[in-house]
Amino acid sequence: METNPGWVTAVRIAPPSLKDNTADADRLINELKIRLDADCIDVDLPLLRRLPRLIRDSGYVVRCLCFNDQGRFRLVGVKTADERPAFFGMAVDLGTTRVVLRLINLETLDAIYETAFDNPQIAIGPDILARIHFASTDEGLQTLQRLIVEGLNEHIHRMCEQSGIQTTDIHLLAVSGNTSMAHLFLALPPHHIIREPYIPAVNVLGTVPAKEIGIHGSDSARVYIFPNVGSYFGGDLISGILYSGMHRKAEISILVDVGTNAEVVLGNQDWLVACAGAAGPALEGGVSKIGTTAGPGVIDRVVIDPEDRRILLHTIDELPPKGICGSGMIDMMAQLFLSGMVDIRGRLAPENCGDRLREEDGIRRIALASADESATGQALSISQVDIDSLIRSKAAMYTILSTITRYVGVTFDDLFRFYVAGTFGSFINPRSAITIGMIPDLPETTYQILGNSSLGGAALILTQRAALEEVAGIRDRITYLELNVNQEFMNRFSAAKFLPHTNPSLFPSVRIPKYSKRNIYCSYS
Amino acid sequence: METNPGWVTAVRIAPPSLKDNTADADRLINELKIRLDADCIDVDLPLLRRLPRLIRDSGYVVRCLCFNDQGRFRLVGVKTADERPAFFGMAVDLGTTRVVLRLINLETLDAIYETAFDNPQIAIGPDILARIHFASTDEGLQTLQRLIVEGLNEHIHRMCEQSGIQTTDIHLLAVSGNTSMAHLFLALPPHHIIREPYIPAVNVLGTVPAKEIGIHGSDSARVYIFPNVGSYFGGDLISGILYSGMHRKAEISILVDVGTNAEVVLGNQDWLVACAGAAGPALEGGVSKIGTTAGPGVIDRVVIDPEDRRILLHTIDELPPKGICGSGMIDMMAQLFLSGMVDIRGRLAPENCGDRLREEDGIRRIALASADESATGQALSISQVDIDSLIRSKAAMYTILSTITRYVGVTFDDLFRFYVAGTFGSFINPRSAITIGMIPDLPETTYQILGNSSLGGAALILTQRAALEEVAGIRDRITYLELNVNQEFMNRFSAAKFLPHTNPSLFPSVRIPKYSKRNIYCSYS
Repeated sequence: METNPGWVTAVRIAPPSLKDNTADADRLINELKIRLDADCIDVDLPLLRRLPRLIRDSGYVVRCLCFNDQGRFRLVGVKTADERPAFFGMAVDLGTTRVVLRLINLETLDAIYETAFDNPQIAIGPDILARIHFASTDEGLQTLQRLIVEGLNEHIHRMCEQSGIQTTDIHLLAVSGNTSMAHLFLALPPHHIIREPYIPAVNVLGTVPAKEIGIHGSDSARVYIFPNVGSYFGGDLISGILYSGMHRKAEISILVDVGTNAEVVLGNQDWLVACAGAAGPALEGGVSKIGTTAGPGVIDRVVIDPEDRRILLHTIDELPPKGICGSGMIDMMAQLFLSGMVDIRGRLAPENCGDRLREEDGIRRIALASADESATGQALSISQVDIDSLIRSKAAMYTILSTITRYVGVTFDDLFRFYVAGTFGSFINPRSAITIGMIPDLPETTYQILGNSSLGGAALILTQRAALEEVAGIRDRITYLELNVNQEFMNRFSAAKFLPHTNPSLFPSVRIPKYSKRNIYCSYS
Repeated sequence: METNPGWVTAVRIAPPSLKDNTADADRLINELKIRLDADCIDVDLPLLRRLPRLIRDSGYVVRCLCFNDQGRFRLVGVKTADERPAFFGMAVDLGTTRVVLRLINLETLDAIYETAFDNPQIAIGPDILARIHFASTDEGLQTLQRLIVEGLNEHIHRMCEQSGIQTTDIHLLAVSGNTSMAHLFLALPPHHIIREPYIPAVNVLGTVPAKEIGIHGSDSARVYIFPNVGSYFGGDLISGILYSGMHRKAEISILVDVGTNAEVVLGNQDWLVACAGAAGPALEGGVSKIGTTAGPGVIDRVVIDPEDRRILLHTIDELPPKGICGSGMIDMMAQLFLSGMVDIRGRLAPENCGDRLREEDGIRRIALASADESATGQALSISQVDIDSLIRSKAAMYTILSTITRYVGVTFDDLFRFYVAGTFGSFINPRSAITIGMIPDLPETTYQILGNSSLGGAALILTQRAALEEVAGIRDRITYLELNVNQEFMNRFSAAKFLPHTNPSLFPSVRIPKYSKRNIYCSYS
C-alpha cells in the first residue's frame, strides 16, 4: 500500500456486502479520498464503465492514477494490483519550431524515451505571427491544430512501439508551450494575443480530455496544459521556473530563456518579476546566412588560438560543418574579440584577420570553411552584418537584465543563481557570453545550464505530485514588467553595444585584448 | 444585472486593457466567482473557443449559464446580453416503461412543452431484469443505451421543432431514473445491481457532457443524473423527495411511490428512512388480464351504486373501455367491498353479484363490459385471480408502511403529510385506497397527490439553484431499511390481507358493509 511521490496510489478497498452496498466507484473514491486527503474525486464515464469488472478482477486491490485537476482530484486510470504495463505519461515541450516528447513511467518515475520533431505548423508559417494570421478563419485554426496533433500522435505511436507499450498505456500528458502554441494546440482563437491589448482566450487551462483534442492515449487520458500569465509570458516559462526551483529558494535568482524573445524571470520564494523582450533571432541562429538551430554538423564551439589566430571549429557529432548555431555564434564572437579580430565596437579589424578576411558587395566577412570543407558544398562565412546582429542581440539581453534588476532594486551581485534555459541555453558557454557582455560578469559557478527546462517542468508535473500545486503559486506570484523602450532604456542599450560594454569595469574578468597580426588557420576535427 | 433563482447569471465584465491583460475566460470567470461566491468555475473547451468573440460582440455584458457540478460550478453556456432564444433545459423522467420530457426555459423558468414516450428498451425486455441480462455483453449494453438515447434525441428534436428552437439551444438536462435505468442510460455495466450483494457501478453520478452519451444539445451541454442510494433506491425517488419538500419540514411525512416496487420514504428535515418492497404489479395494471397503464379508454374510476349495485365505470377521455389501470382497480375493489360483492377476505360473494357473475374454468369473474361495449371487441371482466393479486399488493403496501413506521417508532397519526407519487399515484383515489386498507385511515387532507414527482424533481434541478444542494443532503441523510421478510412481517402481511384489515378498528372511517342482493347495471358515459 505504498504511495509514490507521483500520481499513482495503491489502495485496498473492502469488498461490498449486504451490510455495505456502497457502489463500486463510490467505494473506491471514498478510500482514495482518505488516502489523498481529498474532498472530491471526479471520474470520467469511460473509466466508470470499466470499474466494476476491474475492482473484482483485482480482488479489491488496485493501483489508481489520480491527477489533480485545478484543485480537485480526478481518477484518470485504474489497474489491478499487478497489471502490466505500468501507467505511462508523456511530457511535451510544445515549441514553436521544435517539439520534444519524453515518455515517462508514472510508477517508477523513470524517463523511458525521448524524441523531438520539427513543429509541423512550420509548413503554414515559420513564426507564430504567420500562424496566428492563418488561424483567423476557423478552418485555418483547425488546420493548425490538426497539424500539431497529428505530429504528436505520429511520434506518440512511434515512441510507444519502440518502448513496447500501447498508446492506450498513456494516461497523462503534460504540455508546456508558449501562450500562442497552447492556443493553437487546443484550437482556441489566438486572434487577440497579437493585437493590443494582447489578450489570450484563457490563462488557466487546467486539464482537458485527450480525446477532446484528438490526442491518442487511454480513453480517459487527460492532458494538462501549463497556465500562462499573458500573451507574452507562456506556460513554457512557468514550466521553466518550476524546473529551476528558483521559486522555492530564499536567495534571489534569475532565469533566462532565450528564443526569438529573451524571457527573463527574477525572484525567489516570495516574489517573481518577469519580462520579455526581443533579443533577436541571431541567438536562435535565425539571422546569419549560415545560422541554424543546433543539430549534427552545426558549429557549436569555436576556439581561436590567441597565439596564431587559428580558428578551431567544433561541430555537433563532429561532422563537416553546415552552419552555426547561437551558442557557436557567441563563442565565435568572444574568440574574435579576444583575438583582436573584431574591435570593441564589434567591427572586423582587417589588420588582425589575415587571409580569412573576404569582402563582397562592400561587406566584410570572415571565412570559416571552404566549399570543399563544408557539408553544404558552399563556403561558410560570418559577415559584419551577422556580427552586428549578434551585437544588437547581446546588447538587448544585457539591457533587459539590467533593467529588470534595477526595477526590483537588486544588483547582479545579489544573484545566487543565474539559470540559462532553452535549447539554445544547453550549448551556451557562459564564459563566452560574459566575454561579449551578453550576461553579467559573475563567477561561472553562479551560472547553471538547465537544458530544456520547459520539458523538464512538464516531466515534473507527471512525476511529482507537489509540483502541480507549485505551478499555481508561481503563476499567481509573477509580476509582469512591461518593458518600456524609453530613452533611458535606449541609452543603456547603446552602452551595451560595445564589447563587452562601454564601461569595462562592469566586466573585470574580461581581458581586453591587444591587437597583433598572425596567420589564421581553420580546422574542424 | 439581476440574477434569477435558476442557473443564469447576467454579468458585466471590465473590458481588457494594457493595464489589465487578464485573458477573456479568466476575466469572465473571476467576475462569476464573485457573483456566485464560487472558488472555482470550470469551462469546457467548446465554450472556451467561442468566448473571445462572444464577449466582444456583447460589449462585455453577457448572460452565463453556470451549473453546479458536484460542489463546483461549471460554465455551461454564454450568450450576449440580448441574444435570442434563451437558454433551454430538459427535465427527463427516465422510467422503465415510460419516459417523460419537459422542456424548460432556464431564464423565465417556464415549462414550455411536455411529452412522453414508451421506453424503446421495452423492445429488448419489458422489465428491467430482462434488460440487465441482455446488457451482460458490451454489445447488449450499447444496444440498450443506443435505444434510449435515440428515443430521447428523436423527442428532443420534435419538442424543439414544435417550440421554435434548435436542439443546440438545449444546454442542460436533468435526468431522474431508477438505478438500473441510470446505468443503462450511461452504458454503465448493471450486472451487479441484480446480484447479491446488489452493487451499482456508481452512486453519485454528477454531470456528464451530453455529447459523451450522444444526447443532442449545445456542444457544451451537460447532463445531470440524480444520484442513487443503492440498487433498489434510485435517483427517481431522490428526485421525488426533493419535489415533495418533505426533507425541509419539521413534521414527519411519508412518501410512497408505487410502481413495480413500492418505494417508501419516511422522515423530515432531520432524518429520512427508506425501504422498498414488491408491492406487486397489480398496481401497475400488470397482472389482471385486462390491466394496463393509464391512457385513453382505460377505466380509472369505478362507482357501484350502494342501492342497486349498478357498476358505473369512468374511462380516461371517456372513450369505450379497453382495460383498467391500477387506480381503477383500487376503486373497483373498494366499491365491490362496500357493495358487499366481495367479502372481507376478498372473495366474490355470488349472492351479491347478480347476473354480473361469470365462472370459467372454475374461476369466478365480474363482467364489466360486453364485447360490444368494449373498445377491444372482447368482453372485459375482473377475475377472482385479479382480485387476489390486488389484495396481496395492498397487503404488501400496508405491511411495508406499518413496518417502516414501527421501525422508526412513529404511528400513522404522527404523519403530517402522506405523499403519493408516481404516474399511478396521479390517479389514485385515497378514499378507495383507505377503504381496501392499502393505506392508513388518515384524514383525506393528509394525502397529497404529487403526480410525476420524478419529473418534478428534475425540473426543480433546472430551475432552482438551491435544489441541487438539497439533493446531496437528501442522499446522505437516507437510511435504507432492508425489509426483513421474517415471521413477524408475514404475520402482519396475513393480517393485512383482509378488507380493510383483520383489525377493523385500524380503519374506523370504513363502514363495513352489510350484504344484500340487488341488480347490477353497467354503464360508462
